Amino acid sequence: MTARNAILVVGAGDATGGAIAKRFAREGYVACVARRNTDKLGPLVAEIEAAGGSARAFGCDARVEEQVIDLFATIEREVGPLHAVIFNIGANVQFSITETTERVYRKVWEMAALAGFLTGREAAKVMLPRGQGTIIFTGATASLRGRANFSAFASAKFALRALAQSMARELGPQGIHVAHPIIDGAIDTAFIRDTFPALYQRKEQDGILNPAHIADTYWQIHCQPRDCWVHELDLRPWTETF
Amino acid sequence: MTARNAILVVGAGDATGGAIAKRFAREGYVACVARRNTDKLGPLVAEIEAAGGSARAFGCDARVEEQVIDLFATIEREVGPLHAVIFNIGANVQFSITETTERVYRKVWEMAALAGFLTGREAAKVMLPRGQGTIIFTGATASLRGRANFSAFASAKFALRALAQSMARELGPQGIHVAHPIIDGAIDTAFIRDTFPALYQRKEQDGILNPAHIADTYWQIHCQPRDCWVHELDLRPWTETF
Amino acid sequence: MTARNAILVVGAGDATGGAIAKRFAREGYVACVARRNTDKLGPLVAEIEAAGGSARAFGCDARVEEQVIDLFATIEREVGPLHAVIFNIGANVQFSITETTERVYRKVWEMAALAGFLTGREAAKVMLPRGQGTIIFTGATASLRGRANFSAFASAKFALRALAQSMARELGPQGIHVAHPIIDGAIDTAFIRDTFPALYQRKEQDGILNPAHIADTYWQIHCQPRDCWVHELDLRPWTETF
Amino acid sequence: MTARNAILVVGAGDATGGAIAKRFAREGYVACVARRNTDKLGPLVAEIEAAGGSARAFGCDARVEEQVIDLFATIEREVGPLHAVIFNIGANVQFSITETTERVYRKVWEMAALAGFLTGREAAKVMLPRGQGTIIFTGATASLRGRANFSAFASAKFALRALAQSMARELGPQGIHVAHPIIDGAIDTAFIRDTFPALYQRKEQDGILNPAHIADTYWQIHCQPRDCWVHELDLRPWTETF
Repeated sequence: MTARNAILVVGAGDATGGAIAKRFAREGYVACVARRNTDKLGPLVAEIEAAGGSARAFGCDARVEEQVIDLFATIEREVGPLHAVIFNIGANVQFSITETTERVYRKVWEMAALAGFLTGREAAKVMLPRGQGTIIFTGATASLRGRANFSAFASAKFALRALAQSMARELGPQGIHVAHPIIDGAIDTAFIRDTFPALYQRKEQDGILNPAHIADTYWQIHCQPRDCWVHELDLRPWTETF
Repeated sequence: MTARNAILVVGAGDATGGAIAKRFAREGYVACVARRNTDKLGPLVAEIEAAGGSARAFGCDARVEEQVIDLFATIEREVGPLHAVIFNIGANVQFSITETTERVYRKVWEMAALAGFLTGREAAKVMLPRGQGTIIFTGATASLRGRANFSAFASAKFALRALAQSMARELGPQGIHVAHPIIDGAIDTAFIRDTFPALYQRKEQDGILNPAHIADTYWQIHCQPRDCWVHELDLRPWTETF
Repeated sequence: MTARNAILVVGAGDATGGAIAKRFAREGYVACVARRNTDKLGPLVAEIEAAGGSARAFGCDARVEEQVIDLFATIEREVGPLHAVIFNIGANVQFSITETTERVYRKVWEMAALAGFLTGREAAKVMLPRGQGTIIFTGATASLRGRANFSAFASAKFALRALAQSMARELGPQGIHVAHPIIDGAIDTAFIRDTFPALYQRKEQDGILNPAHIADTYWQIHCQPRDCWVHELDLRPWTETF
Repeated sequence: MTARNAILVVGAGDATGGAIAKRFAREGYVACVARRNTDKLGPLVAEIEAAGGSARAFGCDARVEEQVIDLFATIEREVGPLHAVIFNIGANVQFSITETTERVYRKVWEMAALAGFLTGREAAKVMLPRGQGTIIFTGATASLRGRANFSAFASAKFALRALAQSMARELGPQGIHVAHPIIDGAIDTAFIRDTFPALYQRKEQDGILNPAHIADTYWQIHCQPRDCWVHELDLRPWTETF
């Protein structure tokens, strides 16, 4: 693999997206990382480069078709062929059904589903002529079942799962590996640490998902030979109820 | 039950929606039927009235929040309390992932999911203070699994299923019965007859769903006592592969 | 329908099986009821007959192939053709995995799955030449997911669900309707009343399934025209968490 | 890890079981391999030893409680503590429901489910006091849905899946990792090569699962840190329809 081979993480702002970028960069890929605000990507790029890897930051609102199209065109032109594309944007909100505004319902879908569709479609477009590539959509517990106060979030995550299933069935026989890991548990992020300190205390006994371990799994998925592909898998801490 | 009790079918243009309206009207409810183009509702209203029932036609683009809010307000004010609300808008399209435009992906979701959310939320708002009511969302095969060329449609139907599950779990303990029947097979409609004549020939041997029989099931769901509620069920012809 | 048409409930000892027998007897069928100990069936038969119906009690250990074969032969010869067969034997036990003996694991399977297989197979044999009939297997929450201390019971109920799915797919196109209702909640039985008095208090607010309402659903399933068959549905009280 | 640490593959006769044993042996574990006929294990043990690994062959009919108990006692006493136990017995048969004998239905369950229960329970018993260990049950397409002519096999595989789910939920919080990979496709075995030559030709284009790649996945599962455990995943060739 030359240094010019690229991977893309859309939604690289949080701990998981960043860990995935670092994991693939460690293997020699140029880690292209995208989020709305490029500034916030600076530390991630610096960290990857300090470790001897290559990274490129891209500002992109993945809900906007033109920006996504442009993102892929730029990477393929300036960096190199995309071998893996990871869609990792979440939008976890909780509202009772009567308190869920049209704006919230729509915005959550745009972030978690529409942006996933645009990312996945553009990935398919560049990968299909080459007959290979990996596309991974990050799922959550809400991808599998609805729940009180989860109307908006579960709707969006279910939609993303349907996209992943449809693309896997359509693109698999054309050489593209589409996977949908389901993260079922709290991840070790600043958000969890600051917002749910009690939950965060589980970290001491490995009760919170380490982003680096999630990233290891994503890397293993990418490395699977095509006779043995996973499509869906669940990941959770040992102490998690399910 | 006085004649003033109402039910609402959103998406009453097709065979199924019409059959449901007729079925509930036969039991004494005022069947409020809504679709974008009121003109097309004339025959349905006439048929219900000819059979001795009561019906009211409403023009409503169920993707537009204000129109849905207004629809519910008008019915509750002018007709009577809504006992059952059925969301029955489909949007079955098939495109390969690379041929799916942003417009199609968004529009299918707006019709099959956003409109369902707006309808379901407004139904919840009028039913919750009364502590009772039935809300039914019509599902399809694509509600359960993605498939090649179904990225847009399956995403939207998955989203609707997540909505139904979330609302059922949230509203059930408050007395509202939320159900999600999954229609798995071709329905006896003009669309199937004209577009898939070979498929339509299965009708002779009962290989196509009769809308009146689907409507019977919806009526049975509405009649279930609250100690014995169904949430999800699949309906298909005996010859259907699944 | 002549009075000689028969239905069979295997596992008619409990409240649900009895209610189903009464429901079908009310419609004119001869309700054949079977359980290991015939004596316990006396009150049920008497109740059905007092209501003007016909019933026949059969002693049968449904885990024993010869007895099941003999049961079907006797009914078809002495009573009449079986239009519906309901398998309703449960075997709810709870043990941690290390406390589950081989005997318990095997016995629970024999009661809840093997007996269902024998009943279903014999039903298929008599129904197939006639190209019609209804076979219903009663499922439970444990049919859908495993749980701590449910290794034996969930294994058996999963097995029964697989049987119902396989038979539905195989026999549907041959005219046999196979359904698998999933009862998700406590049923109003003497067992629940005596063993879980706190749970039983939910009855006052309809928080426990009324066997007569379950039986209504089974009757509706049997009556479905063949263009509109349900295979799986869940039934639970409005207050039940799921 | 000292050379004395052991793993056990029950059902090590086929290609998959053998590949798993070789994979774990390569990492330094003593690969204990069990099947009914010890003689057939000779080549596998020889192959592992020729590669510098350690292996031990055990004759065991995993359907017989005493033999399974004895197997675990012998290994723990003579070899060392079991770190991973893999249950890999299949029993794929196809019969129409009316052609399925009681003997077949029972035997398939005994091989694919009862033996899995006995293996899993004994594994739990030795692992629980140590608070760690991996237990993997091999699933198949028939673990997820029934199908015509699959009444016996699907019933058994559903039962095994219920066992895996129940044990995962019960033992996870006690430190034992229970996983259920679902192999969805033909595996490169002598059986497939000789029985389905047309299917086997897919091998040239990676259309058949390579046992060594399945084994890699099992090894990855075993290596997962406890904050990031998978419970269920599906594995299939890129060309496989699903």
